[in-house]
Amino acid sequence: MIGIASIPRGKSSIQALLCGCAIAFLAPGPIHAQLFTFSTQELMDYTAQEPFDRLSDGRPKVPNDMMERARELSSEEIWAVLQQRGFNNQYADGFQVLHPGKTMVGRAFTVQFMPQRSDVDDIARAKAKNSGRAGLTNQTAIDMLQPGDVLVVDLFGKKVNGTIVGDNLFYYTMKATGGGGLVVDGSVRDLNGISEIDMPAYFRAVDPTPIGNVMLTGINIPIRIGGVTVMPGDLVVGDREGVYFIPPQLVKEVLDRADEIHIHDEWTKKKFDEGKYKSSEIYSTPTDPKLQQEYQEYLKRRLEEIRKQRSPK
Amino acid sequence: MIGIASIPRGKSSIQALLCGCAIAFLAPGPIHAQLFTFSTQELMDYTAQEPFDRLSDGRPKVPNDMMERARELSSEEIWAVLQQRGFNNQYADGFQVLHPGKTMVGRAFTVQFMPQRSDVDDIARAKAKNSGRAGLTNQTAIDMLQPGDVLVVDLFGKKVNGTIVGDNLFYYTMKATGGGGLVVDGSVRDLNGISEIDMPAYFRAVDPTPIGNVMLTGINIPIRIGGVTVMPGDLVVGDREGVYFIPPQLVKEVLDRADEIHIHDEWTKKKFDEGKYKSSEIYSTPTDPKLQQEYQEYLKRRLEEIRKQRSPK
Amino acid sequence: MIGIASIPRGKSSIQALLCGCAIAFLAPGPIHAQLFTFSTQELMDYTAQEPFDRLSDGRPKVPNDMMERARELSSEEIWAVLQQRGFNNQYADGFQVLHPGKTMVGRAFTVQFMPQRSDVDDIARAKAKNSGRAGLTNQTAIDMLQPGDVLVVDLFGKKVNGTIVGDNLFYYTMKATGGGGLVVDGSVRDLNGISEIDMPAYFRAVDPTPIGNVMLTGINIPIRIGGVTVMPGDLVVGDREGVYFIPPQLVKEVLDRADEIHIHDEWTKKKFDEGKYKSSEIYSTPTDPKLQQEYQEYLKRRLEEIRKQRSPK
Amino acid sequence: MIGIASIPRGKSSIQALLCGCAIAFLAPGPIHAQLFTFSTQELMDYTAQEPFDRLSDGRPKVPNDMMERARELSSEEIWAVLQQRGFNNQYADGFQVLHPGKTMVGRAFTVQFMPQRSDVDDIARAKAKNSGRAGLTNQTAIDMLQPGDVLVVDLFGKKVNGTIVGDNLFYYTMKATGGGGLVVDGSVRDLNGISEIDMPAYFRAVDPTPIGNVMLTGINIPIRIGGVTVMPGDLVVGDREGVYFIPPQLVKEVLDRADEIHIHDEWTKKKFDEGKYKSSEIYSTPTDPKLQQEYQEYLKRRLEEIRKQRSPK
Amino acid sequence: MIGIASIPRGKSSIQALLCGCAIAFLAPGPIHAQLFTFSTQELMDYTAQEPFDRLSDGRPKVPNDMMERARELSSEEIWAVLQQRGFNNQYADGFQVLHPGKTMVGRAFTVQFMPQRSDVDDIARAKAKNSGRAGLTNQTAIDMLQPGDVLVVDLFGKKVNGTIVGDNLFYYTMKATGGGGLVVDGSVRDLNGISEIDMPAYFRAVDPTPIGNVMLTGINIPIRIGGVTVMPGDLVVGDREGVYFIPPQLVKEVLDRADEIHIHDEWTKKKFDEGKYKSSEIYSTPTDPKLQQEYQEYLKRRLEEIRKQRSPK
Amino acid sequence: MIGIASIPRGKSSIQALLCGCAIAFLAPGPIHAQLFTFSTQELMDYTAQEPFDRLSDGRPKVPNDMMERARELSSEEIWAVLQQRGFNNQYADGFQVLHPGKTMVGRAFTVQFMPQRSDVDDIARAKAKNSGRAGLTNQTAIDMLQPGDVLVVDLFGKKVNGTIVGDNLFYYTMKATGGGGLVVDGSVRDLNGISEIDMPAYFRAVDPTPIGNVMLTGINIPIRIGGVTVMPGDLVVGDREGVYFIPPQLVKEVLDRADEIHIHDEWTKKKFDEGKYKSSEIYSTPTDPKLQQEYQEYLKRRLEEIRKQRSPK
Repeated sequence: MIGIASIPRGKSSIQALLCGCAIAFLAPGPIHAQLFTFSTQELMDYTAQEPFDRLSDGRPKVPNDMMERARELSSEEIWAVLQQRGFNNQYADGFQVLHPGKTMVGRAFTVQFMPQRSDVDDIARAKAKNSGRAGLTNQTAIDMLQPGDVLVVDLFGKKVNGTIVGDNLFYYTMKATGGGGLVVDGSVRDLNGISEIDMPAYFRAVDPTPIGNVMLTGINIPIRIGGVTVMPGDLVVGDREGVYFIPPQLVKEVLDRADEIHIHDEWTKKKFDEGKYKSSEIYSTPTDPKLQQEYQEYLKRRLEEIRKQRSPK
Repeated sequence: MIGIASIPRGKSSIQALLCGCAIAFLAPGPIHAQLFTFSTQELMDYTAQEPFDRLSDGRPKVPNDMMERARELSSEEIWAVLQQRGFNNQYADGFQVLHPGKTMVGRAFTVQFMPQRSDVDDIARAKAKNSGRAGLTNQTAIDMLQPGDVLVVDLFGKKVNGTIVGDNLFYYTMKATGGGGLVVDGSVRDLNGISEIDMPAYFRAVDPTPIGNVMLTGINIPIRIGGVTVMPGDLVVGDREGVYFIPPQLVKEVLDRADEIHIHDEWTKKKFDEGKYKSSEIYSTPTDPKLQQEYQEYLKRRLEEIRKQRSPK
Repeated sequence: MIGIASIPRGKSSIQALLCGCAIAFLAPGPIHAQLFTFSTQELMDYTAQEPFDRLSDGRPKVPNDMMERARELSSEEIWAVLQQRGFNNQYADGFQVLHPGKTMVGRAFTVQFMPQRSDVDDIARAKAKNSGRAGLTNQTAIDMLQPGDVLVVDLFGKKVNGTIVGDNLFYYTMKATGGGGLVVDGSVRDLNGISEIDMPAYFRAVDPTPIGNVMLTGINIPIRIGGVTVMPGDLVVGDREGVYFIPPQLVKEVLDRADEIHIHDEWTKKKFDEGKYKSSEIYSTPTDPKLQQEYQEYLKRRLEEIRKQRSPK
Repeated sequence: MIGIASIPRGKSSIQALLCGCAIAFLAPGPIHAQLFTFSTQELMDYTAQEPFDRLSDGRPKVPNDMMERARELSSEEIWAVLQQRGFNNQYADGFQVLHPGKTMVGRAFTVQFMPQRSDVDDIARAKAKNSGRAGLTNQTAIDMLQPGDVLVVDLFGKKVNGTIVGDNLFYYTMKATGGGGLVVDGSVRDLNGISEIDMPAYFRAVDPTPIGNVMLTGINIPIRIGGVTVMPGDLVVGDREGVYFIPPQLVKEVLDRADEIHIHDEWTKKKFDEGKYKSSEIYSTPTDPKLQQEYQEYLKRRLEEIRKQRSPK
Repeated sequence: MIGIASIPRGKSSIQALLCGCAIAFLAPGPIHAQLFTFSTQELMDYTAQEPFDRLSDGRPKVPNDMMERARELSSEEIWAVLQQRGFNNQYADGFQVLHPGKTMVGRAFTVQFMPQRSDVDDIARAKAKNSGRAGLTNQTAIDMLQPGDVLVVDLFGKKVNGTIVGDNLFYYTMKATGGGGLVVDGSVRDLNGISEIDMPAYFRAVDPTPIGNVMLTGINIPIRIGGVTVMPGDLVVGDREGVYFIPPQLVKEVLDRADEIHIHDEWTKKKFDEGKYKSSEIYSTPTDPKLQQEYQEYLKRRLEEIRKQRSPK
Repeated sequence: MIGIASIPRGKSSIQALLCGCAIAFLAPGPIHAQLFTFSTQELMDYTAQEPFDRLSDGRPKVPNDMMERARELSSEEIWAVLQQRGFNNQYADGFQVLHPGKTMVGRAFTVQFMPQRSDVDDIARAKAKNSGRAGLTNQTAIDMLQPGDVLVVDLFGKKVNGTIVGDNLFYYTMKATGGGGLVVDGSVRDLNGISEIDMPAYFRAVDPTPIGNVMLTGINIPIRIGGVTVMPGDLVVGDREGVYFIPPQLVKEVLDRADEIHIHDEWTKKKFDEGKYKSSEIYSTPTDPKLQQEYQEYLKRRLEEIRKQRSPK
C-alpha cells in the first residue's frame, strides 16, 4: 500500500451520483470478501461532500497540513462547529487513554468485528480465499494501514478475547501509520509493552488474552463506536477527554473557528490577568462596547499574524 | 407481502456458491437503498447450509410445524446442541421480558439503526427516493413483516429516542406477524398499552420519547444483538431467561434432542418421586445398569409415542 | 389540616408579584422551622401560573375531576404536550413499581432530607421547638398529608437508613391521602406488608433498616427527583414506566390532548384490524386524503361523545 | 442421611470447649475430603451457644415448630432483635426472588465453591476417592440435604457456569428438603422449569450453561453470602426483600419479639382506621398515656390469646 | 469583592439566636433572588458555633494560618476527629482528581443548580431582574468568589450540559480564589486546557458540551455533595482520595490532632526502621511500657518544636 | 520469623501423601486458632507438586533468582503457559494500581477476612487466647510476613472499614517483605502517605475509615481474589494490567517461555523497523521459510547469550 499516490479529488456530489455519472474507481479486491461489502463506489457516494483528494482506497484524504493544524484542537472547539451544523453524534468517550498529554490526529481506517459464528465465517473465508486473499484476521486489516491513518475498530466492547493488538502489532501500527493512533471499542493486551510506544491509543479495557471468538466483518465500512457513526476517512481527533470523528467537509471550518477560539481565550486570559474585571464583564463576550472593540481588533490582528505564519509553509 | 408463495428450497452450498452456480433470485428493490446492502444473493450465499424453503425475501423458512414444536423448548435444551456444534455465541439476555410465561418463536426479521449523521443519511434517503421508496424509517421495515416473523432490531442499547415501537406499532406488528414477537437492543414506549397486547417482547428499557436521532441502515442484514451475530431467518426462541437465535440448519437437531431431554426429565422426576434414590444415582445418568436399561426402554417407548402423536398432523 | 376548606384561586401572576401586589396569605408556622424555608408567599409566587384554586397550605389544587380523568393517562401522552411546551425535564424513572397495573395520580406533597449533620440539625430542632413544633421527622411531614396528595420525597437515593416508611406509615399514608401514592428517591421497608396495601408506590430500593442518619430539611419546597425539579402541587402521574410531574398550568392541555390520542389509537387499531393497510398508510397520519377525512370525522364524533359523557357528572 | 435421628442437645459452651471436655461426636467421613475441612467438633464448638438439639451432621437443629412460626416473620422484625444484639451483618439482598409471595424458612446447609484450579482439585479428588467418596460435585452436596434444610451456596456471584441447579436438581432439592429452599450467590438454569416448582429460591442470575470451571471446596463450613457470614444450621428466612441468616441462639427472641410487633401493628392500624389521630400520636408509641395504657392491655390480651392458640399444638 | 474587610467575629450561639438577639447583619442583595433564599441571618444562625470572624457575605472565615496548616492534612487525620465528634457524613469521594499530588484547602462557596423548568426559572429571573441583578448563571456565582474560596457546586451528577466551567472560567476561578479549588458533583469541559492550570479540582466527568438545561437555584446555601451536607464556609480539604468538608468549629481540633498523628507516624516509622519490632509491638500503641514512655517523651518534645516553629510566623 | 532457615524441599507427591508417608512437618501454632484451619501438612499436601524448597511456614519457596527473572514478565507471557496447561483462572484485574510502572513479584502470603459475627468471633478469639496468641487482627497476619512475600488479602471487596492498611502498616509491610507488595480485594487508607512508599500495591478502593466490622478467619489458607483461587506460596506477578498468581510448579516453564517471547519480540520489531514487510509476513510466525530460519538462528543465539549472562550470577 505504501507509495501509492493519492487519487484526484472526487467531484461527485449527491446529484452526480444519482444520475449515474459518478467517477468509476476501482479499489483493490480485498474489501469485497467480508460479510459486509462497501465498495469504493459506495464509499465515494456516501462521502461525496468531502472537498479533498482521495486515498488509493477511496477514502477522503484530509490534507497533511490540516492534520498538522488539528493537533491544536480540543474537544470543545470541535463541538462548537459540529453542533452548529447539526452533527451531535460525533463524539465518543469512556476510553482508557494511553498517553493523556498527546493529541491524536489522523484519518479513520475502520474495521468491524462481530461475534464468531462458524456457518457465516466459513463462507466469508471461502469467499476471501476464492478472491485470492489469505485470511480475514486483524492482521489483514492492519496490513492495509497507511501513513496518517488512525485505526478505528468496532469490537463491540469485548474485553476477554477482544484485544485488537498486543505490543508487537501496536508497534507495527505505529510504524505503518507514522504514529497515527488507535481507537478500539474493545481491548488491547500487553499494556506494559504498549505504554513504551509513542502512539496515542484509546481502548475500553486491557486483557492478557489474544483476540478470538470473533470474525472480521468489514474493512473501511461505516462502523459504530459508542454513539458515533464513523465513516472511513473521517478526521479523528483525540484529547484527554475523548475522541471526535469529524466529517471531512467540516474540517476547514473547525480549524478556522479554532483559530478564533484560541485568540479569544488568549485575550480573555490576558484581561483576567489584569484583575480589573469580573468574569461576566469579559467572558464569553465583553459587555463594554469599548472592550468589545478592543477584542475585535485584537482578533483581526492575531488572525493575520497566524495566517502569515502559516503561509510560508 | 402477504400471499406471496415461498420459493423452492435453496440447493446452494458452499461449493456451489463458489463455482458461481448459485440460484439466481431477485428480491424486491427496497433493501438496496440503505447504507448497508445485503443482496438476496448474498443472503442466500451466507445461509447456504439451511435445508428448508425460502421466504419471498430470500430468508430461510423454518417450517411452521417445527416452529410449533419449538414452543416447548427451553434455553438449556437449545444450549445442549449449539455448544456441541461449536455455536457458543447465539444467546442474548439482559432484557426486560414483557410476558414472562409466554415462549416466543419465529423467524428473525432483522433491522439495524445507527446514530444519525446527516451527511450519510441524506445520501441514503436520496438513493431510496431514487429507487422509488418513500422513506427509511422504522415503519419502512415494519411494513415488510410476514406471518411467523420476529422483529429483531439493533438500536445499540439506546433508551431515550431508541423506542422502536409504541403501542400502535406494537399492535400492528402483532397483527402482521401473527403474534410473532419483538427483540430490540433498545427500548419501547407506551408500556401500559403494550402490556395488554398478547405478543412476546424483549427490550432493554422503556421511555416515553419517540424514536429519533438515528438512521435506518439495514433491513434483513446480519446484525448484532448483545454477543450474538443474528442472521435473517434464524429461528428465534425466547423464554423467561433470554433469547436464542438458532441457525436454521440446526433446528431439527435441536428439536429432536429436546424430545429426548423432555423424556429424560419426565423419567428422572418420576424416579425422584419414588423417594428411593439420591440424585446422583439417577441424574444425569443412572449409575445402576438396571436403571440405565429401564431408562433406555422408557425413552424408546415415549419417543415412539411422541412421533405417533405428531404424524397424524 | 383535615377539614380546612381550600382557599380562593390565586390571581397572582408574574406581573402581579413583581409590583408587590400578590395576595397576602399566611400559612401555618411549621414549614418555617426547617433548614430550607419556602414561605406560602414564595410558593404562590413560583406557581403563579397555575389556574386553579389552592389548598390550605398554598399549593395549587388541581381539581378532583381532572385527577379522575388523569387516571387514563400514559407517559407518552403526557410527553407529547410537555415537550411541545419546552418542559423536557418532568419525567423520572428507574423506580421499583409496587403495583405495576395501577396508575398513580395526585398532587405533589414534597419532602426533602439531607445527610445528618448535628451542628445544623441541632439548630433546626431548636428553632422548631421554639416555634412550637415537636419534631422534625418523617412523621412531621406525613401528618400534614391531605386527601389527593402523593408524597414525594427526596432521600438522595439512600438505601440503608433511607426508608421513608414501613408498612405502618405506608398504611397511614394510604388512609390520609385516600390512596394517593408515594414516590421516594430512597427506599421503603417491610415490602411484604406494603405489598398488601392498595396504594401505588415508586421507590429505589427496599431495606430492613429504619430511616436514620438524615435530617428533614424541607416540607413543600421545590425538590429534585432524578432529573426533575418537582414543585409542591404538581400533578403526579405514575404508570408502569415511571412518573411524570405535570405543572398545574399544563394539566388541562395534557388531558384534552390525551382524549385525541385515545381516539386516534382507537381508530388506528380499528383500521389495522381491517388488514388492508400497511402501518405507514395509517399511522401516524393516514396518507390517503379520504382516510384522513374519515379519521377527522371519527375524531370529531368521538370527542363530542366523550364530552357528552363527562358533562352530566 | 434419611432416617438418622437427631442427636442430643450439645451442652458444650465456650468454657467447656476450652477445657477440652467437648463432647466427642463423629460425623460421617465425607466432609473431610474437600479443600476446607470443618469437622463436626469444630462446627459444634463454633455454634456452642445454640440451645437446641443437633442434626446428625452436627448442625444446630432449630425445632420444627419454631420454623413454622418463622413463616410469619418479615425482614424488619428480624432486624429489630439482631441489631439490638449487635448482629449487623446477617442480611443479604440483591437476589432474584423466584416466588415473591412465598416466605422461605429453613436450616442452612452450606456449600462453597471456588474457581477451578486443577493442581488443587486433583488432590482434593484423590483424597475424596481415598476416603471412599465418589466425587466432589454439586450433587455430592445436594445428596446430603435433609428435610427442613435450605441449600445455601457460595458460587462467588458467578453467572456463566455458575448454575448450581437446573430444573431436575431443583426438583430433587424440593423433594429432599420438603420444599425448604435455595439461596445461591451464583445462578440457576432452566428458569422456565424451575418457575413451576413450588419451592422458594434466591439467586443472582439465570444462565443456560451448566455448572463448570469451579471446584467444590466445602460442605457445611462457614461461608460468605454477600455481606453475611453464614454458619451451618443458621435459621434462614427469606421474604420479598432479601434473606436473613439468624444464629440459632437468637431464634426464640426473634419470634417472641415478632409476636409483639404483629400485635403492635394490628393495634396501630386499627387506631389509624378510626381516623381520629395523626400518625405521630399513635406510632411508634402512643403519646397520650391513656392510649399507651390501652395499647399495653391490648398487647397483653393478644399475647395470651396467641400463646393459648399455640399450646394445644 | 477584593479588598472588602472581613467582619467581626460572630458571637451568636444557639441560645443567643433563640432569644432573638442575634447580630443584625445585612448581606448584599443578590442571594435573595434565586429559588432558594438563605439569608445572611440564617447562615449566621446555622453556623453559630463557628469561633472565627466572618467574611463579608456572612460565611465563617477559617483563618488563613489554619488553612496553611491544613495543607498537611490527610483524609484519615480528619476522619479521626470527625467520627469522634459524631460527624460521619462529611466525606465525599468518587471524583476525578485533576492534580492528584496537590492538596486542596479553602472555604466552601456553595452553588446549587436544579433541572431547568421554565415556569419556575422565569419567575426567578424576573425577581432577579427586579432586584437589580443581571442574570442567574454560573458566572453570577463565579463572580462572587473571594480569595481562599473553594467553589463547591451541586450539579446533581450531570455530565452532558453539566459542565460548570471550561478552561476560561476555570482560569478566572483560579485567579479569583488565589488557586483555591473546585468541587463539582457534575462535570467540566476543556480538560486539556484545565490540566495546565495550577488549581486543584474534583469533578465527576468531563464533557465537550457547555452548561445548559439547568437553573441556578442557590448561592451560599446548604447543599448536598454525595453523602455530605455542605455549609457555606466549611473548610474544604481534598487529597488523592476525596474531599472532606470540616465544620469550622472543628478545624482547630483537627489540626492539633493532626500534629500528634504526624509525630506518631514519624516515631512509628523510625521504630520500624530499627527492624527490631513487630508491627503490633509498636503500632498503634507500643505494648512495652518503656517504649510507651519513650514515645510520650518524643511526642512532647516534637510538639514543642512544632509550636515554636509556628509562633514566629 | 526473620532468620528462620528454609526447610528442605518437599518430596511429597499425590501418591506419597495418599499412602500416608508425607513428611512430618510442624508449623508454629498460630494458624490453628482462626475459623479456618489449614495445617502445614494440608498446605504441603495441596502444593505437593511444587519442585522447590519450602519456607518455615510450609509455603513453597520459589527461589530468589527466579523471582528476579520474573520482574521482566508481562501478563501475556504468563497467560501463554498457563492457558496451555489448563490454568485459566489465575488472573485478577480491576484493581487500582499504586505504582503502574513498577512490576510486583513475590510469594503469596494469604489472609482471609469475613463479615463480623460476634458469636463466631468470640469463640475464635477464645481459642486463639487459649493457644497463647494475643489477637486475631490484620496485624497478627502482617507480623508474620517474610522477605519476598506479597501480602494477598481477601476482604470481599469491602470499601468502608475494609482498609487492610494505612501508611504506617504499609510502611511496615514494605520493610518486612523487602518491598514485596500488596494485593487486597478491599481497600487501603491514607493514599497520600502510601503513594510516597516504594512498594507495589493493588487495591479496589481507598477510604479514610480504619478496618472494622470484619473478623480474621484464615492465614495462609487458600483464598479467592476475584476469579482466582490463590494458594499460599503462589508466585504473584503484577503489572499495569492486573495480577497473575502462578502455581510454583509452572514458574520455571513460564520464565523459560518468556525468554523466547522476549527474543521473538526483539526480532519481530527489528524486522518491522526494516520497513520491508507487512505484519502478517513476520508475525506471529514468518511466512517465508528463509525468514523463519533466520528467526530460529537468532532465537538460538540469543537464548545462549541470555543463559551465559545468567550463569555467572
